[in-house]
Amino acid sequence: MKARKLLMIPGPIEFEPEVIQAMAIPTTSHVAPDFVESFGHALDMMKEVWLSPSGQPFVVAGSGTLAMDMAAANLVEPGDRVLVISTGYFGERYANLLARYTDQVDVLRASRGEQVSPEQIEAYLKEKDYKLMTFTHVDTSTAVLMDPRPIGELGKKYGVLTVLDGVCSVAGEEMKQDEWGIDVAFTASQKAIGVPPGLALLMASPRAMDVWKNRIKPVANYYADWENWLPIMEAYANRKPAYFGTPAVNLILALETSLRIILEEGMDQRFNRHRKIGRAFRAAMKAAGLDMIPASEDSAANTLSAPFYPEGIAAGDFLAAASAEGVILAGGLLADIKPRYFRVGHMGATTRNDLLATVGAIESALQKNGYDLKPGACLQSAQQAYDAS
Amino acid sequence: MKARKLLMIPGPIEFEPEVIQAMAIPTTSHVAPDFVESFGHALDMMKEVWLSPSGQPFVVAGSGTLAMDMAAANLVEPGDRVLVISTGYFGERYANLLARYTDQVDVLRASRGEQVSPEQIEAYLKEKDYKLMTFTHVDTSTAVLMDPRPIGELGKKYGVLTVLDGVCSVAGEEMKQDEWGIDVAFTASQKAIGVPPGLALLMASPRAMDVWKNRIKPVANYYADWENWLPIMEAYANRKPAYFGTPAVNLILALETSLRIILEEGMDQRFNRHRKIGRAFRAAMKAAGLDMIPASEDSAANTLSAPFYPEGIAAGDFLAAASAEGVILAGGLLADIKPRYFRVGHMGATTRNDLLATVGAIESALQKNGYDLKPGACLQSAQQAYDAS
Repeated sequence: MKARKLLMIPGPIEFEPEVIQAMAIPTTSHVAPDFVESFGHALDMMKEVWLSPSGQPFVVAGSGTLAMDMAAANLVEPGDRVLVISTGYFGERYANLLARYTDQVDVLRASRGEQVSPEQIEAYLKEKDYKLMTFTHVDTSTAVLMDPRPIGELGKKYGVLTVLDGVCSVAGEEMKQDEWGIDVAFTASQKAIGVPPGLALLMASPRAMDVWKNRIKPVANYYADWENWLPIMEAYANRKPAYFGTPAVNLILALETSLRIILEEGMDQRFNRHRKIGRAFRAAMKAAGLDMIPASEDSAANTLSAPFYPEGIAAGDFLAAASAEGVILAGGLLADIKPRYFRVGHMGATTRNDLLATVGAIESALQKNGYDLKPGACLQSAQQAYDAS
Repeated sequence: MKARKLLMIPGPIEFEPEVIQAMAIPTTSHVAPDFVESFGHALDMMKEVWLSPSGQPFVVAGSGTLAMDMAAANLVEPGDRVLVISTGYFGERYANLLARYTDQVDVLRASRGEQVSPEQIEAYLKEKDYKLMTFTHVDTSTAVLMDPRPIGELGKKYGVLTVLDGVCSVAGEEMKQDEWGIDVAFTASQKAIGVPPGLALLMASPRAMDVWKNRIKPVANYYADWENWLPIMEAYANRKPAYFGTPAVNLILALETSLRIILEEGMDQRFNRHRKIGRAFRAAMKAAGLDMIPASEDSAANTLSAPFYPEGIAAGDFLAAASAEGVILAGGLLADIKPRYFRVGHMGATTRNDLLATVGAIESALQKNGYDLKPGACLQSAQQAYDAS
């Protein structure tokens, strides 16, 4: 029997075997011609995955929080007014983070599990003169999906930079950075982009780069400063070696591999696959009678889901039972309801097989914890919804 | 014939095969019990490698520059007076970096290839009231080795925090953090610690942690802030899962593997091996009639060397010839003399075999570029010096 369990958490996710193999290529020099070609190729492909031919890509060793920090530290100066549109834990984190760089941070909070409407956002933009607004495309704590299109439009209309936190969305949820007028979109490697954790990935629009170039004060955060990294990214894109900090060679070879696989699938095809899997997973949870954050199908992300436990089921017992069935799931993240819900990542390389295995493990874990459930009902719903969509 | 070339640059270096294999272990959850155990074990072992039973370890995804930034951003507040002891490129970088956090940065510069003496340092400490001083244990641009002992003593005598940039030294050059009174010592994974690039590794003394706890202003750099990372490091050290940013799971498994191999060798044994290899490499270059930075044996690092080319040899031709012989070497890094010297990393897993192969490739590359050299003279000197020491 295969000992390895399926990793269905919202990152790190299941990775393509080829990507994992690339991690173990004996490390070469960061200025060796073959590595320069791989890094340059990865930067080129990022622009295709972000659908941002005009964008400036950045790849820096760090976690997703470094990507958040890069956008904030480079674009926000003391006294700048910024708006955080918060749909969960990571919106709150962004507000905390931005407060390091300016004391003018407003937070527009959604009710739990709900989206913030474009009208609510416009009301804020009408009232005050913001330099920048951030929103979380998919908040990993709530599985709330925000539609970036109207936010990009509002950003253009009011002259506000739009920053999309795409840590749980890029390469999973539909996102067309240039067409939709998004100024910065970033992610972390271990999410739908399909590379083990350790890289912050960011794409900045020409408008964002202009705002950065016209800063008055130096960037307060040295490691995140684009002044250090821009010449490096430009050099590698032009297939020339350059040095500021040693790039994470093995992770970048894995990134090149994963981006190639993503583009072979095709972006529209990939967004559709995520929609199908998301829809099928939610149908299964509905068949099991579980409530979800968000309650509405229209607000639900396709990269992860956040179901509530039925009454009387303890988080630890449920997660242990799912793990015993061979599927690792994640607990809750929102502090006030942490023990009441769980999270399932279904992004990146996730297949129909993985989906069915996961639904099967959840079904069994519920039953073993005394929850009355018609055997196979969830699996059947998942399969039907997947095949119908 | 084996196609892979020997990677003898000052990082990334040659890694142990077991470490490379750990990179390709299918990624698990960052809160899975086996990963929690591995991360905790790595933190424990760091204290042994740093010889710092009292230290607080930090492991964060990033390059060595992030480690520099962590020490600076957490310990320096606006207006604090700091002293940078510079023996090359990375001293200058530290001065630039520190200027983000305070406008009171003094730089005490060595002449190229020379050390800064304790007397010179003490003269500065007598004159002004510094909060912190930094020095580069081995500067990767010059191969100058500084003795940390008198600096640690001066730090204690004058109540100044001592920050050791050990990017090119930790786990290679002798360093006993607690005994020598060093407050912060950091490195990057791809150097003598023997792990592919992508991790910043830092150890802070109780005195450094106290200074950080008593800060007046928040840390200006969010990603580097110990407030975010300390609870995570404490949790993993206590074998409990915790979350701030997703750790670089595969790199941390590789770190655990490498630290285990390092401790199996034993620290004194390892420091001695580096001394032997450094001495033997310098003997070989002397036999070839090459000048070196530094000129004096007493100032020379054991983790890398920086020989000048003989008159009339072009950097590109020489490096290409060495590569054709199967050994990758690094060019110069100091802007003003970049084409006049090369750099050879001989740290971490480097063996006597690697040493001889490298010396042989240099000998051939010199000869192929028209340099008159008695065949085998360098190899013989390397071998004799290695076996004698």
